[in-house]
Amino acid sequence: MKIVVLKFGGTSVGTIEKIKRVTDIIIEHKKKKNKIIVVSSAMSGVTNDLIKKSKQISNNFSDSEYDVLVSSGEQVACSLIAGRLNHKGFKSRSWLGWQIPIFTKGPHTNSRIQKVNKNKLLRFLKEGGIPIIAGFQGVNMSERVTTIGRGGSDSSAIMIAKFFKAQRCIIYTDVEGVFTTDPNKLKKAKKIKVISYEEMLEMASLGAKVMQPVSIQDARLNRIDIEVKSSFIKKPGTLITKRTNLYNNRIITGISSTHNDAKVTLVGVKDRPGVAASIFKPLSINFINVDMVVQNISANGKETDLTFTIKAEDLNKTKKIIQENKRINFKKVLFQKGVSKISIIGVGMITTPGVTFRMFQALANKKINIQVISTSEIKISVLINKKDAKKALITLHKEFKLQK
Amino acid sequence: MKIVVLKFGGTSVGTIEKIKRVTDIIIEHKKKKNKIIVVSSAMSGVTNDLIKKSKQISNNFSDSEYDVLVSSGEQVACSLIAGRLNHKGFKSRSWLGWQIPIFTKGPHTNSRIQKVNKNKLLRFLKEGGIPIIAGFQGVNMSERVTTIGRGGSDSSAIMIAKFFKAQRCIIYTDVEGVFTTDPNKLKKAKKIKVISYEEMLEMASLGAKVMQPVSIQDARLNRIDIEVKSSFIKKPGTLITKRTNLYNNRIITGISSTHNDAKVTLVGVKDRPGVAASIFKPLSINFINVDMVVQNISANGKETDLTFTIKAEDLNKTKKIIQENKRINFKKVLFQKGVSKISIIGVGMITTPGVTFRMFQALANKKINIQVISTSEIKISVLINKKDAKKALITLHKEFKLQK
Repeated sequence: MKIVVLKFGGTSVGTIEKIKRVTDIIIEHKKKKNKIIVVSSAMSGVTNDLIKKSKQISNNFSDSEYDVLVSSGEQVACSLIAGRLNHKGFKSRSWLGWQIPIFTKGPHTNSRIQKVNKNKLLRFLKEGGIPIIAGFQGVNMSERVTTIGRGGSDSSAIMIAKFFKAQRCIIYTDVEGVFTTDPNKLKKAKKIKVISYEEMLEMASLGAKVMQPVSIQDARLNRIDIEVKSSFIKKPGTLITKRTNLYNNRIITGISSTHNDAKVTLVGVKDRPGVAASIFKPLSINFINVDMVVQNISANGKETDLTFTIKAEDLNKTKKIIQENKRINFKKVLFQKGVSKISIIGVGMITTPGVTFRMFQALANKKINIQVISTSEIKISVLINKKDAKKALITLHKEFKLQK
Repeated sequence: MKIVVLKFGGTSVGTIEKIKRVTDIIIEHKKKKNKIIVVSSAMSGVTNDLIKKSKQISNNFSDSEYDVLVSSGEQVACSLIAGRLNHKGFKSRSWLGWQIPIFTKGPHTNSRIQKVNKNKLLRFLKEGGIPIIAGFQGVNMSERVTTIGRGGSDSSAIMIAKFFKAQRCIIYTDVEGVFTTDPNKLKKAKKIKVISYEEMLEMASLGAKVMQPVSIQDARLNRIDIEVKSSFIKKPGTLITKRTNLYNNRIITGISSTHNDAKVTLVGVKDRPGVAASIFKPLSINFINVDMVVQNISANGKETDLTFTIKAEDLNKTKKIIQENKRINFKKVLFQKGVSKISIIGVGMITTPGVTFRMFQALANKKINIQVISTSEIKISVLINKKDAKKALITLHKEFKLQK
């Protein structure tokens, strides 16, 4: 049995008109003789409205009741989709987490899907039915409603694809796919046809707008091909697949960039175990997200310099924490606003020598100064002055021929 | 274990502020050392909004999906109430129909509660918990979500009171209780302290605003005392109970009135079996609600006159049906707009002779002409000219000392 999982995000089912359009997409797939499983998010805005209500009730709203509350949003969307398919003459019904059941483990508001019971759904599929599954929700061993944390309905779709050994999971959303870089920042950005899970994960700053990293990781671990495409425009999207499925010989797949960061350098930090932790623990507790971290080897074996980046708006809070925390030991601290991180990503760089050099040379030719460098297997990131960010993006996009 | 069921209607939980107030009421009851079971409707407006969505999706929206859709409203209200109780330090949780379970039979959108499983709820009550049950919903033998038709959450509350052998079921709503007559029509109307199920049923036109007749009937059959009271004003409400609990010696409990009806008289109808059915069937099919029906004995044994009342706005439709339907056999038809029905209701009239006479004399004294009379064991209804309705109401309210 060939199974395709279709997942629709909140904006795709945001209005009655959009739900009608989504139903047409489902019918198109159904006519291709595939078995279709649909997973839907709540209509956009609904979940936020419910969360707002919970905050008005209590600034410390019960986690288990939060799950009952917000899971109602997906219930509404699914019944409307199934009702529309019925109206069009198709056998369809909504399936809530507890009806399947989708068993989860872990705490309320942040559970993980452990098992998807297949029996009832398989019977329904064999009868020619189109199940519309409420995303984001499940049920735990105590028969309480749960919601799955980060990734939400995307994770539901991927776990269902895994348990049903689906051919493909198509994520319908409000963007056309994954681009070589943010199209809002660079008009020449091109939609990527095929990308590996690993590249997608490294392009988090682009990818997060399309899918949560945790869902990409779930797909990677379970080897599920994902297609991300628009529910509004009829065009092929981006296929996210395993590395070995990438046949083209491109070196770089995409460029991600941040445009307003701040850099913090601690000079003369004692070079001994536990020092890094003593710096990042108070930041983490205060919800300050640390991005790049670079520490060079200690020249004298006693002291080293440590640089990290944060969002520009977190700079004042970070200054206060570092200056007031006596446990952090250093000689001098330097703060700099107005820096940008530019990263080139591509599995091709593993087998292609000289990528680093080409990147640095291209930037040097444009007189763009590199402040900090950090690399992974398939990503090279540099920290540059914010005013050079746009120029760097254009330069690298051209250098690695991404517009083609 | 002394159990009290508290039911809150849509207006009582219509906003976050009102939900907070409702929680205070629950806590007051809890402090009286009773075991409390709460049943809640959806926040007012929510159900209508969901129904509107279903109609936009299809003019023939699937019944089973309708139940999934609209039952989400009660889910939201219950989680917010439970969350608020948790915030106030009380052990509480929401219970959805399928979690208890509340088993229903009958068709979707109009199921009836068959069984309420007590085990889990009893355990929760024994642990000191306050269960907040989603009204209006249940689950059928196929594990599909169902909703119960007429009566809605009131019926849920009464059936739960029945299965748990509750001492009392308190219906919190937006009115203070049941009045001797509509307070909007007569300022002197008084709140009734105690009323029998039968009187409440006969006062349908008043009672329907407070509770659906089907719920009153359920309470009557299961001998459950109901108290109807306001969730906004701290005052005793109206107790609806069995006839033998009424100790006072009043004759009449209340007066109901309709203010804009039309009267239809068929003159010279053949006096043979099936005639009445042939008249009312086409009206019923066309959703015309027939209220009073009076047929006198046939003087010559062959023909009779038949009078019935309908809502004034249905008159034109009714005229058309009667005049075009060849199966209805009569000599002449008379239509009259602008009539009102005034009914006096009271179990006391069974044991008190002369009530009919007193009613007719009081109206005659005010020169109010009675057109049609119809009586039941505990109700006397008369049809009068619409312009006399207000005067009749004042006269009868005074005659039977209801203002005291």
